[in-house]
Order: sequence, then structure tokens, then C-alpha cells
Amino acid sequence: MGPGEAASPTDCEIAEHLGELIARQGWVTLTGGRPTGVMDAALRGASRTGGLTIGVLPSDTSAAASEWASLRIVTGMGEARNIVNVLTSQILFVCGMNAGTASEVAFALKIGRHTILLNAGPGSLQFWPALGEKFFHAASSPEEAIGIARDILDRQAQQ
Amino acid sequence: MGPGEAASPTDCEIAEHLGELIARQGWVTLTGGRPTGVMDAALRGASRTGGLTIGVLPSDTSAAASEWASLRIVTGMGEARNIVNVLTSQILFVCGMNAGTASEVAFALKIGRHTILLNAGPGSLQFWPALGEKFFHAASSPEEAIGIARDILDRQAQQ
Amino acid sequence: MGPGEAASPTDCEIAEHLGELIARQGWVTLTGGRPTGVMDAALRGASRTGGLTIGVLPSDTSAAASEWASLRIVTGMGEARNIVNVLTSQILFVCGMNAGTASEVAFALKIGRHTILLNAGPGSLQFWPALGEKFFHAASSPEEAIGIARDILDRQAQQ
Amino acid sequence: MGPGEAASPTDCEIAEHLGELIARQGWVTLTGGRPTGVMDAALRGASRTGGLTIGVLPSDTSAAASEWASLRIVTGMGEARNIVNVLTSQILFVCGMNAGTASEVAFALKIGRHTILLNAGPGSLQFWPALGEKFFHAASSPEEAIGIARDILDRQAQQ
Repeated sequence: MGPGEAASPTDCEIAEHLGELIARQGWVTLTGGRPTGVMDAALRGASRTGGLTIGVLPSDTSAAASEWASLRIVTGMGEARNIVNVLTSQILFVCGMNAGTASEVAFALKIGRHTILLNAGPGSLQFWPALGEKFFHAASSPEEAIGIARDILDRQAQQ
Repeated sequence: MGPGEAASPTDCEIAEHLGELIARQGWVTLTGGRPTGVMDAALRGASRTGGLTIGVLPSDTSAAASEWASLRIVTGMGEARNIVNVLTSQILFVCGMNAGTASEVAFALKIGRHTILLNAGPGSLQFWPALGEKFFHAASSPEEAIGIARDILDRQAQQ
Repeated sequence: MGPGEAASPTDCEIAEHLGELIARQGWVTLTGGRPTGVMDAALRGASRTGGLTIGVLPSDTSAAASEWASLRIVTGMGEARNIVNVLTSQILFVCGMNAGTASEVAFALKIGRHTILLNAGPGSLQFWPALGEKFFHAASSPEEAIGIARDILDRQAQQ
Repeated sequence: MGPGEAASPTDCEIAEHLGELIARQGWVTLTGGRPTGVMDAALRGASRTGGLTIGVLPSDTSAAASEWASLRIVTGMGEARNIVNVLTSQILFVCGMNAGTASEVAFALKIGRHTILLNAGPGSLQFWPALGEKFFHAASSPEEAIGIARDILDRQAQQ
């Protein structure tokens, strides 16, 4: 998850590298599916590495999807699709921060989905933990984020 | 698409065989994802034949999904997920008929998605064509339904 | 409920008269809220008679609403707003029939909401009862439809 | 908008007083409609003062609504109803902060809906402005919040 048109080059680099690492784990990469920003970069990284990719689109056609989304879920529900993204994901990786991304982090913490932030800025690190400390994580690199995710999945598998 | 708990044994046999044929075409099989009726049977047929299967769930967890849904989209939106099913599908195969199934056929004809009915009963064959003749089709066997679908996709590819 | 742009003049006359009668009962009139067809006519009839009117809009702004919708619920969810219409209504009055309207009737019968059809054509009277006979009603005039609705509400109040 | 079960007594006092002031302006009060926390308190304040009140419910029945919601919109879409709340509101008043409330603030700033925070804590005042400074406001009392809202509406009316 992360900004679309407003994503910084660094957000996109991190997202693309994360997509590669997610695919190497054998995990499925799911994003908001539009052909821009973090959504597009993560799908590109995962797809080029041979991973399965899903784009969950806000529009009512699949025309405006990232070319790297091998499966396209067409919701026709606008921003409500952000909720589908969060509910469907086992773990959220978040690169960068803007208002749309914040709605996904908020919803993830509300329903108790583990959320790992990268490149989100100091404001995020102070604001979000108070809303759901147990499920909030921060990583300084894609590799660290994958490590945190593996630990979470290992713990869940033991329960 | 088709009834869940209320599906007849014939609806489920047709759905399972359709799932097999869809998978053999190399197409993705998408259903409402619950572990019952036509949804479950179609995913089972497709999955056993090596096809990719998607379940789009009404619930807000993936717990109550068909075991044959290899990918589970969790919408948390109740019956509104029927609209996601229709928007995401290129062609709808419908086995049997009840009120929930009718809502999907109605929505498909509204947005112009080709819909192929099997085992729907004489009432359907008289009612639906008046609401969207161009996109309504009936088949008397899974093989005939696949043939109709191939013709539609061929025509769309030529446009 | 009923067709928008495709509504017949008769559909709209019935809807406007129904809106008047609903308002005279002191009931709230809720429609899909767009400025066309049955949606617009029913709100106009109710509003001119002093009734409270609600439009539940598919769009993500209130700009394209019927001028007769005194309250405008903006869903941004496209056709998924049909489900909100049905869930929110105590009783559905349906004038005319097309694919969009059929999706509302189907959903109403699925969840067990009493539905009264007017001017729906012989196909409807044969098709729908088989999907939910207990909740399906047909009326030949707005006055008869109001009478059916009053009987239903009286029975519900006694339970 | 504001926390439900997790609302503080101060959040609820502010919300109830805001509801009174909103009603005195002749404005409609809309909340998430459940019988708890800020949602319930704001509707109570508005309803007792004679204002029109709307509850937009996440559930698929109107049974679990605040008794102070004179109109109940039943969405059946779970947390996706937060988006309906934001899209339908002309101005958002927010009392307190938790993850669910944050999803509404985030979505409001994304679509450009003016949002006035009360009792949100220092974290909010540092985090949110960076995501949408133009639409973010903070007030130290319900009276100040109403004044900010009137200024916004006056400016919009002049455009």
C-alpha cells in the first residue's frame, strides 16, 4: 500500500524491491492495482520476479489497471476498495504516506491486521502506534520488513 | 454463479463439470467463494483440473471459504460482493436460479456482461431475454456453454 | 424503485402518484435519487405532498441528484447502492421493470423484504413468485399497493 | 464522527453539545448510527434539540441503531459505511480519535472535505495537517467548531 500519483521516487524504489522480495517468499502481492506509484511499482517488482500479482481496482472496468496486475478484481466501489485490500491481505506493507494510504493503515489497525511501515516519516511513527500498538511495525529496509513479516507468520502458525 | 445452500444436485454436477472445462481452457474460475452449492462445486472442478480459482467472499474473514478457492478476496460487504463478482468476470456461467443468483444475472445484463444460463428453468428463459437480449444466452450442457463463451471471446478479440 | 432513463410515461405517472400516497401516510420515500425516471417521479410526488424524501446516490457527489430529494445519501459505490436502497426500505414499491430494477427485486426477495410490483408486465408475474412467493406482491393501482403495504405493516406490528 | 465503545466521557460530552449546536443551526446531524459513544451522543444532543438525525449503519438490519437516529440508512457493508458518512457530510466534526475515526479523517482529507477536530490529542494536530492542510481544522470548543463551519459554508456559498 502507498501513494499513487503522489508517490516519491524513493517510495516506488522501496515498493518495487519489496515486490521482488515478496515474490521470492512465494507470497502473493496485492495492491490497489492502478498503473501508478507504489501500487504499480510493487506489482512490477513481484511480477518480474515470477510472483502472482493481484490488483483490486476502484473503477468499474479493468481498463485502467497496472500492466503488472496478472489478476484484476474490479470492484466499482471507489475508495471502498481500500477496505477489500486490507481485509484480503494477511500482512500490510506500507511505503510512504498520504491521506489515501492513511485510510488503509487506520482500517488495518482497527481490524487488527499487522502493518509494517517503510519511509513514512517521523509523524507516522508518533501518531499510529497510539491507535494500535500491537499491530504496528516500522522497518528501515525492505529486507527488515520481510523479516518482521516472517516472524509474524511464524507466530501465527504456532497458535 | 448459482445457488448456495439451495442448489440442486444437478446444479452442482453441472457446475463442477463447468469448472473442469473452464480450467482446461486455461481460464480463471471465480465464484462467490462460500463452501457450498454451485460456488463450491465449480471451484472444486476447476481446482482438481489444475485451474486457478478465486473466491470473492461476502464475509469479513477468509475463514468460511471453500477449500477449493486458492485465492480468497475478502470484501466484508455482504451481498454487495455479488457486484464485484459480475464486474470482475469476463463471462458469467449461471447454473440454477434463486433470488441471489437473479441479482447477479440482473446486474450482468445491466452492465452488458455476457451471461450463459444452464438448468435455469423455463421461467428464466422467458423473463431474462426481455431485459438484455444481446447479452443473454442459454446452453443445454457445459460443453455447449464453453462453445458459446469461446465464440463471444473470439468476436471480442476481433473488435 | 424502477427504471431511470428507460422508464415509460406510465411508470412515471404511477411512481409520482405512489409518492403522493406514501407521503400522505406519513411514510418516508426513498429512491435511487437520480434526476430521472421512476426515482425522480416518486420523489417529486412525495415532496410536493409534504413528505420527507431521501435519494441514495450511486455517484461520489450530490451534484447529480433529483431536485426533489431533500436528503441525499452519497455512496460513491455505483450499483452497490441498490443494496442500500433495499436494506433501508421497510417495503419496496416497484414500478416497471428493467435489469437494474430486477437486481433490486432479486435482492429484496433474497433478504425477505416485502416487494409490491406495479406495471411490471406478465413476465415478472410468472418469474418472481417462484424466487420468493412469501414476499412477492402485485398491485394494479397505487391505491391497491398502499393497501397491501398497510396490511403488511399491521401484521408486522402485531408480531 | 468519533470513537464508539472506546469514546471517553469528554468525547461524548463534546459530541452531545455539538449535536445541540448543529441542530440549532438548522443543520442535519449524521453519524455512524450505533447506540454507543460519540455516534450516539451527537444524535442525542441533536434530536433533543429538535434537529433531524441520520444514522448510517454498518449492519444489515436497523435493529442495532441509536434510539436517537430518526432516519436509519442500512448499508450492510461493514466499515465501508464510513466512506458513505464522509461523502454524504458537507463538513465533518470529529471528537476524539481512534483507528476507526482515523479512517474517516483520512478519507475526508483525501476527497477534500473540511474536517474540524476536537479533543483529538497532540499527535493528531501534528500528523493530519501534513496530509491535507487546506481541509484540516482544530477547535478547542463546540462553539468554536460551529464558528469555523459557518465560515467555511459562507465562503463556499460565495464561490
